Amino acid sequence: MNVEFINPFITSLLNVLEMMGHTELTAEKPKIKKNVVSMGDISGLIGMVGPKTKGSLSITFEKSLALRIMLRMLGERKNEIDEEVIDMVGEITNMVSGGAKKELSIKGYEFDMATPMIVSGANHTIDHIHDGHVIIIPFSSDSGQAFIEICFD
Amino acid sequence: MNVEFINPFITSLLNVLEMMGHTELTAEKPKIKKNVVSMGDISGLIGMVGPKTKGSLSITFEKSLALRIMLRMLGERKNEIDEEVIDMVGEITNMVSGGAKKELSIKGYEFDMATPMIVSGANHTIDHIHDGHVIIIPFSSDSGQAFIEICFD
Repeated sequence: MNVEFINPFITSLLNVLEMMGHTELTAEKPKIKKNVVSMGDISGLIGMVGPKTKGSLSITFEKSLALRIMLRMLGERKNEIDEEVIDMVGEITNMVSGGAKKELSIKGYEFDMATPMIVSGANHTIDHIHDGHVIIIPFSSDSGQAFIEICFD
Repeated sequence: MNVEFINPFITSLLNVLEMMGHTELTAEKPKIKKNVVSMGDISGLIGMVGPKTKGSLSITFEKSLALRIMLRMLGERKNEIDEEVIDMVGEITNMVSGGAKKELSIKGYEFDMATPMIVSGANHTIDHIHDGHVIIIPFSSDSGQAFIEICFD
C-alpha cells in the first residue's frame, strides 16, 4: 500500500472535521500497525470491495474528542456517547470514505463501500484480518486523539 | 429482508461452531433491532457489497463463550481475549460469511465480502448505519450468548 493510496483518507478526515466539526486535527506519520495498539471509545468501520482487492477502514475517536466534535458540529453538549453521537460518527465515517473514494477514483483506484458500522465501548481495539499490512495514522487535537486504520489485501 | 436471506447466516454459524468449535448454540427468534441492545466482548464485523445492494454483518460473543470455543476448537485455555482469540473469531467470521455467501449464491443473491474486522473490548455495542432494518438473532449456549446482526440496504 503506498502513500498515494493513504493520503486521500488523511486529507478527507482533516477536511471533514475542519469544515463540519470545526476541529483541527494534526496527522502524525503513518505507521505499519505491529505492536501498536490504537484504543478508543467510538469507532466508525467500513468495508471496501474493489474488482481486484478488498479492505477495511476504521476511524477511532477518544470519547473526549467525539463529544467535543458533537458540541462544535451540532451545538449539543453531551457527557456520554449516545445515539446522536453514534449517528454523527456514522456520518463522519461516510463522508471521510466518500471523500477518499472520489479522490482515489480520479487516480484509478475503484472500490465500493459497504454499510458503515459504529462500535461504542470504552477502550476498545480493532484488528483487521488481512493478508497485507495495516497502516495506522494517529491524529492529535486539542480534545483528544483519533486514529485511522486502513488495510487492503 | 426476508427469512430466505437470514437463514443461511444462522445455519452457517450453527454449523461452524458445532463442527469446528464443538459447541452447540440455540438460535432464538430473529428480531428487528429497535431498542434492543446486543452487548458483547468480542465481535467479528464484515462489510458486504453486491451489484444492487450493500450491507454489514456482525457476530458478537460474550467473553465466556469465546474463551470456551477457544478451548474446544484449539485446546487452549485462556483467561483473557488475546491475539489468538482475536484470530479465531476472525476465522469464524470468515467461515460463517463464506458459508452464507455460498448458500445465498445458489438462491441468486450475489455479494462480495470486505476484509473482516475484529473488535475487542468489554461490553461494546455495534450500530449499523443503514436505510433498511437491522435484524438481530440471539443465540444461547452452555457458555454464554452470541448475536448475529445483519443489515442490508
